[in-house]
Amino acid sequence: MSAHNLTLLTDLYELTMMQGYFETQENETVIFDVFFRENPNKGGYSIMAGLEQVIEYIKNLHFSYEDVDYLRKLGIFSEDFLHYLSGFHFSGNIYAIPEGTVIFPKEPVIKVIAPIMEAQLVETAILNIINHQCLIATKTARVVFAAQGDGIMEFGLRRAQGPDAGLYGARAAMIGGCVGTSNVLAGKMFNVPVMGTHAHSWIMSFKDEYTAFKEYARLYPDSCTLLVDTYDTLKSGVPNAIRVFKEMKDAGIKPKSYGIRLDSGDLAYLSKKARKMLDEAGFPDAVIAASNDLDELLIHDLKMQGAAITSWGVGTNLITSKDCPSFGGVYKLAAIQNEEGEFVPKIKISENTEKITNPGNKTIYRIYDKETGKIRADLICFVDETYDTSEELLLFDPNATWKKTRLPGGSYTMREILKPVFIHGECVYTSPSVMEIAAYCQQEKDTLWDETKRLFYPHKVYVDLSKRLYDTKTKLLDSMSV
Amino acid sequence: MSAHNLTLLTDLYELTMMQGYFETQENETVIFDVFFRENPNKGGYSIMAGLEQVIEYIKNLHFSYEDVDYLRKLGIFSEDFLHYLSGFHFSGNIYAIPEGTVIFPKEPVIKVIAPIMEAQLVETAILNIINHQCLIATKTARVVFAAQGDGIMEFGLRRAQGPDAGLYGARAAMIGGCVGTSNVLAGKMFNVPVMGTHAHSWIMSFKDEYTAFKEYARLYPDSCTLLVDTYDTLKSGVPNAIRVFKEMKDAGIKPKSYGIRLDSGDLAYLSKKARKMLDEAGFPDAVIAASNDLDELLIHDLKMQGAAITSWGVGTNLITSKDCPSFGGVYKLAAIQNEEGEFVPKIKISENTEKITNPGNKTIYRIYDKETGKIRADLICFVDETYDTSEELLLFDPNATWKKTRLPGGSYTMREILKPVFIHGECVYTSPSVMEIAAYCQQEKDTLWDETKRLFYPHKVYVDLSKRLYDTKTKLLDSMSV
Repeated sequence: MSAHNLTLLTDLYELTMMQGYFETQENETVIFDVFFRENPNKGGYSIMAGLEQVIEYIKNLHFSYEDVDYLRKLGIFSEDFLHYLSGFHFSGNIYAIPEGTVIFPKEPVIKVIAPIMEAQLVETAILNIINHQCLIATKTARVVFAAQGDGIMEFGLRRAQGPDAGLYGARAAMIGGCVGTSNVLAGKMFNVPVMGTHAHSWIMSFKDEYTAFKEYARLYPDSCTLLVDTYDTLKSGVPNAIRVFKEMKDAGIKPKSYGIRLDSGDLAYLSKKARKMLDEAGFPDAVIAASNDLDELLIHDLKMQGAAITSWGVGTNLITSKDCPSFGGVYKLAAIQNEEGEFVPKIKISENTEKITNPGNKTIYRIYDKETGKIRADLICFVDETYDTSEELLLFDPNATWKKTRLPGGSYTMREILKPVFIHGECVYTSPSVMEIAAYCQQEKDTLWDETKRLFYPHKVYVDLSKRLYDTKTKLLDSMSV
Repeated sequence: MSAHNLTLLTDLYELTMMQGYFETQENETVIFDVFFRENPNKGGYSIMAGLEQVIEYIKNLHFSYEDVDYLRKLGIFSEDFLHYLSGFHFSGNIYAIPEGTVIFPKEPVIKVIAPIMEAQLVETAILNIINHQCLIATKTARVVFAAQGDGIMEFGLRRAQGPDAGLYGARAAMIGGCVGTSNVLAGKMFNVPVMGTHAHSWIMSFKDEYTAFKEYARLYPDSCTLLVDTYDTLKSGVPNAIRVFKEMKDAGIKPKSYGIRLDSGDLAYLSKKARKMLDEAGFPDAVIAASNDLDELLIHDLKMQGAAITSWGVGTNLITSKDCPSFGGVYKLAAIQNEEGEFVPKIKISENTEKITNPGNKTIYRIYDKETGKIRADLICFVDETYDTSEELLLFDPNATWKKTRLPGGSYTMREILKPVFIHGECVYTSPSVMEIAAYCQQEKDTLWDETKRLFYPHKVYVDLSKRLYDTKTKLLDSMSV
């Protein structure tokens, strides 16, 4: 993506509004929050991802000569405004939750503080990047959870929604917990493990299946997974694979890993039959891998049915998040700085109460149970509020304020999860490597209770508002009711 | 995309298989077909798109020094093979159905004829590009059909699956029939109309809604669409818009287009009420535009309910094809050239008869009813078969051979729809502009009967096999049954 100039990757209305602010000279510093309203796939949590690409995008923001020339030809922008654009750079502050962190609905995962012209321009690309990668990282975490410790390989490039969806989807999948990807460019760009063996066409291009297997085993003795369903899995594929494994054994070749891959038919039935055949032939350590339209629900079910599969290749359903192919991140105005330099909270009301925003300059504290290290709740408050964990903490549900929880002093810990990323236009954050983020994400998932991780009807983690934030919001709503 | 080097945008197994063919010196010329098995969204047809990007990809194919270096570090490729890769270029032939053409399941939309090492490498990227753009073009055609002549704007960038999905999705949406996109970079790269006005944040950044509208109208008097749902659509938004329209009228300003946009609430109810208010105020030509989680089904229903909307902004559901976010294009071996230079048909059998491939070196004739110009059927045959339209044509369903249709000589016309794109590695095809493709696509949709275009339970267009192809396929299947 860094090779692209993505400055024009924005909605036209961002530019028409920018020109509006330019003309009216209303370029106050404002705060926009990126947040989402629901976890995808009816899950109990989401995974933050995409920040490194947001950072690259912000760093590279500039209108090239060709960009300005193109905008001029649209006939709606003044020369003064185009001149301003040609010198444009981002001068604001950005705070974000680091990649790999578990995140919940309603909380600001990114906060942009900048003159409104700048803050408005970056809306679309930030949402595009974050919505995509959070979606795939979150979907992957579900698939990985269903596999109960088995490895999940990301295989979806050919069905991804374009090259970037394959590339950054693979990145997000690694963050979410995949052990590798088939995508070679992702391997190169993000330094993550790449995996893969052969396709049906390999088998079909030889005179018979046995010859194709034998040649493959000769070429790749170290990692020899044979695809057994080109002709007939149990009558032809598995017996031919066993014949080749025996020949390898007789020749004294000990592969680091070897086994078979099933890619069609009933995977529960075929894997159990194949397991028996492999065991009886003296290959109890041969791995049975499976692919073919898998997702977390099918893997969950196959596990329940005792399928003898311990390695899973997941394609279309993961790389597109097929049952929920969009992450609903939005970008909403939260405050405008007045002449005294104070941020005046702003709110967007809506006929749908779920869509009402949280006003002001906010941060998020994550509250952990001290004993277990598990998340008790997230608390959204104003940036200048402070807490003392030796004192009792009163939490209440902002939608049902009578639902109260009191955490005794000393029973909990707190951690501020929004981190500075840009300050006055300078990047102050160094992205970890993708594999470091993946390791951190694994720890993060361990801070969730199992009840939150389950695939169906998970327990929701509370995201509460501080008393001061709640009062401010209520007052604003009262003042705006017609 | 051209700025990227996409050569490594492939599955690792393509490269391990390539090395396999390199080592075994089995580099026969083969034929691979790209085809799909079902129209997305349970529709009656699909739209071809993405060919221009496939052409760019093939033209730019080369392993850079860094690419080879990365592959070397994986430790699975020999120096001889890496040396071969460093001099790699595509030397084969590619045939394809032009973009904007209506296409049907089972027919080869792209045919690659090349030495197997080259043909194998390009599988993943070709599928990635074609699957994405066909998906979005096809989804768009459905949405456009539902709107019965109203304009559809593509608004989905922020929810697209990454930058390319937004960019090439917008391209495909224009091919499928959108009148414009909000995506400025797509506008610049593909020379297509860009559209957009302002967001809720524009309204919220002024002291009140009226002032925000007034300022917007002052800045953009020519094209003034006001977003009326920030506070209360009927009590505040529409009256304030009318006030501003009156002031424009009094000042003698005649906008080329003006109106309001609804973005929440019940669009049928609100649009009818707003229409009445605008008409009574003397603005019968004010356009009512709508957005908010629209898709073809909701637009269809709103039309049925008499919603007074004539312009539609469609985002998430179009740009992700939400109800069916992948197009199932596959890439299957159809033939291998023998030492005599003949293509020997190959077939992949499967427990699922729907997945059995069509063997051999094939082309497709589209058969039209001479009187109406509508499509009667597509006929897949071997490339050396010829037809005389003055003679009777016998068509039969390959899955139910007793279903026969006889077209009398002179009652039909035929057109070969697969066109040469690369010959001996040289591109012989010039892509039309996106707007030219869009115009051609509009004509193409007119060759479909209404029964095929409808949203629910459409009539399927027959894709038949020639007698010779059918016999070859049957013989191959018989010879392979165990």
